[in-house]
Amino acid sequence: MPLGLLTDLYELTMAAGYVAAGKDREKATFELFVRRLPPGRNYLVAAGLRQAVEYLLRLTYSEEEIAYLQALVAFQNAPAGFWEALRNFRFTGDVFAVPEGTPVFAGEPLLTVRAPIVEAQIPETYLLATVGFQTMVASKAARVVQAARGKAVVEFGTRRAHSPEAGVLAARAAYIGGCIGTSNTEAGFRYGIPVYGTAAHSWVQSFATETEAFEQLQNLLGSSTVYLVDTYDAVEGTRHAARLGSPLWGIRLDSGDLEEQSRAARRILNEAGLTEAKIMASGDLNEARIRRLEQAGAPIDAYGVGTELSTSADAPALSVVYKLAEIQRNGERRFGVKLSSEKETVPGVKQVFRHCDHDVIGLVWECPGCGSDQSPEPLLRPVILRGEPVEEWPELRVVREKAKAAVSRLPEACQSLEAGSEPYRVEWSEELRGLEAQVRAGLRKAES
Amino acid sequence: MPLGLLTDLYELTMAAGYVAAGKDREKATFELFVRRLPPGRNYLVAAGLRQAVEYLLRLTYSEEEIAYLQALVAFQNAPAGFWEALRNFRFTGDVFAVPEGTPVFAGEPLLTVRAPIVEAQIPETYLLATVGFQTMVASKAARVVQAARGKAVVEFGTRRAHSPEAGVLAARAAYIGGCIGTSNTEAGFRYGIPVYGTAAHSWVQSFATETEAFEQLQNLLGSSTVYLVDTYDAVEGTRHAARLGSPLWGIRLDSGDLEEQSRAARRILNEAGLTEAKIMASGDLNEARIRRLEQAGAPIDAYGVGTELSTSADAPALSVVYKLAEIQRNGERRFGVKLSSEKETVPGVKQVFRHCDHDVIGLVWECPGCGSDQSPEPLLRPVILRGEPVEEWPELRVVREKAKAAVSRLPEACQSLEAGSEPYRVEWSEELRGLEAQVRAGLRKAES
Repeated sequence: MPLGLLTDLYELTMAAGYVAAGKDREKATFELFVRRLPPGRNYLVAAGLRQAVEYLLRLTYSEEEIAYLQALVAFQNAPAGFWEALRNFRFTGDVFAVPEGTPVFAGEPLLTVRAPIVEAQIPETYLLATVGFQTMVASKAARVVQAARGKAVVEFGTRRAHSPEAGVLAARAAYIGGCIGTSNTEAGFRYGIPVYGTAAHSWVQSFATETEAFEQLQNLLGSSTVYLVDTYDAVEGTRHAARLGSPLWGIRLDSGDLEEQSRAARRILNEAGLTEAKIMASGDLNEARIRRLEQAGAPIDAYGVGTELSTSADAPALSVVYKLAEIQRNGERRFGVKLSSEKETVPGVKQVFRHCDHDVIGLVWECPGCGSDQSPEPLLRPVILRGEPVEEWPELRVVREKAKAAVSRLPEACQSLEAGSEPYRVEWSEELRGLEAQVRAGLRKAES
Repeated sequence: MPLGLLTDLYELTMAAGYVAAGKDREKATFELFVRRLPPGRNYLVAAGLRQAVEYLLRLTYSEEEIAYLQALVAFQNAPAGFWEALRNFRFTGDVFAVPEGTPVFAGEPLLTVRAPIVEAQIPETYLLATVGFQTMVASKAARVVQAARGKAVVEFGTRRAHSPEAGVLAARAAYIGGCIGTSNTEAGFRYGIPVYGTAAHSWVQSFATETEAFEQLQNLLGSSTVYLVDTYDAVEGTRHAARLGSPLWGIRLDSGDLEEQSRAARRILNEAGLTEAKIMASGDLNEARIRRLEQAGAPIDAYGVGTELSTSADAPALSVVYKLAEIQRNGERRFGVKLSSEKETVPGVKQVFRHCDHDVIGLVWECPGCGSDQSPEPLLRPVILRGEPVEEWPELRVVREKAKAAVSRLPEACQSLEAGSEPYRVEWSEELRGLEAQVRAGLRKAES
């Protein structure tokens, strides 16, 4: 997979400009964070950090890619040193990240990149698309799983994902967010995620009768058979399945009034003595519809969620940004700040200090609240130091368990599916407030 | 890029089942279409068909992938013939497709796959995610471009796309839909799409003053310099840019009230004698916001559109499906139909016949309206025959021009940004209606 050019052109023109301006020895620190929680969300679940780090460790330029850039108007004045920088490109900096599966909030850095400015600038676009997307889907999955109140949720959304590869990554993120698995076979192969699936409507259609289709499926799948019963009529389909009896796992309903149909199906299965047979529901489900089904006491044992999950349909993008926090030249520090309306940023390299019921965003060199009885947990940890990966990645299964436990420890209002009247408390340290005031004052002076 | 497993598990279990049931010699025809237009859309622009075809021509299974499947519970009863089928997998069927850039409507097949049932079933998931995503983005782009009334629109959305690869494909689709280019350098490299970009806020922040940052950018980019002026204050920033004078392309506004700021910027540039300098606007733009700016007569010369375009934020998924239309065994034809509530499908292999102001969906062997003065244009054309590609792909530039012309020929109500009170007329041929009635009647008989 080519990586070098998978970035916005302006990252590369800036890189050329940094070299031209003699700034390429300057060390920049960028922070990746979400500006605002999307409507209805009270927390996010960090994900995609592993793919971000793997990208940084593999990022290089081929001669063909360099030749393509050399032909562009934008690089006609680019200095020779820029082409050398691309030819020898290797990420040599440090990266700090919040572990995948950690609940995070607006303004909290999920990823901090400190490197020579060219190396830190170019990855912006890829890092945003990687961390933003997976964090968005993991966060959506956590909501869907919460609505299902302990019942299994399987991710079914690759077909409506934004490209097949997005489907694989959505499956990964949904698993981190609490799904028990995915229909995406590549995600199973690549990441060891449990995979699920039996047969679609086309299976039923391809046989002369539904009963013949069901018999053949039972022959193949035995006790893991799931009959998709709604190709022609869900009640009739359930009867056809019930008539075949064991072995089976159960049936799947994929259209219509799922509450009514699940009750009818449960009766039919019970009357046939198949009290152990399960009912799975799918078809345009999301957290709100699942909650309604659960509140109504629909006899559904498992949910399949597709489009809404793989696209985070009610909030299909996070306001994720990658902002310059600090720049160092010859030991002198300068702080990045942006004052654009509604897009302000806060200067300085930050750490997130998690207390039991709130977070404090402070500067990386301080430790607000440390030394008290309960020292807070700093969320950002080194994952790359001087271009070398720091440690092995945990198994995704473990990430998922940790995420589940962490979400369950959030304040109750925060776990609600509605936007909280009591949002999770995220404060700034006094030192961070002080630095911001100082930097803004300095800027006004420099430009006046 | 691995492809074989990039599908839903149930496609593979069905494939195993088809072999087990002795159905693998049956030839199936599947049709890919969009069930309903998303809210607010009057038409779609077909895209992604090239990637769909390239996938089919490259789809194979490695031994490692096969070994992964063999270890899954779902395949414990799979027949030896299934593993042979995967080992020798090569798509040998026929594919018909609506050319990229063609306006299409609900229910119209965009892609028809006719092949031995195993070969036709397995690609479902990948084809849906490929064609659905790009068609969605091309359709969104057409609306955004329409709102801009002839002014240039550049796609800026990779950072918020659903993974970096989705960003590359979104750039391609947005170009087909009418954007003049993209910020995504890989899309430029891979598809020859014009690329745009100069510098971000971090460029300005990295220098001690905005003026120094602007000077350095001008040195690098000369007459293609675009000053991003809103890092600290858009009006002040525009003054700093104006003071530097020519050469420049213009300035970019990325936050705040774009109408007010563009007027202020225009005045400042004109007063400095820079009447030729352009103003580009970006920042959470979509077709509605662009239309408002255009209606207000804001002096904006070009638009950059990111998140809303790459995610089709107001309609982030199409109801795209891949349904069995027909199955042939020993020369006998059977038609696929689905009666699930709100998810019905229509049997038979179809063709879309485009007349000057309406379409007729008919059966592939008929030609409703042919022989009259103005013969309709059949939209689906062969792109793969017996596993071999039929012709060269047109240049994307040509696809884009054709799309533009075709959209401009749609009825005026259809080109509106609001959902039409007069939707585009899509009829069924009498023969298609007849077949549907016949198949439904036959089904009731078979199951009773």
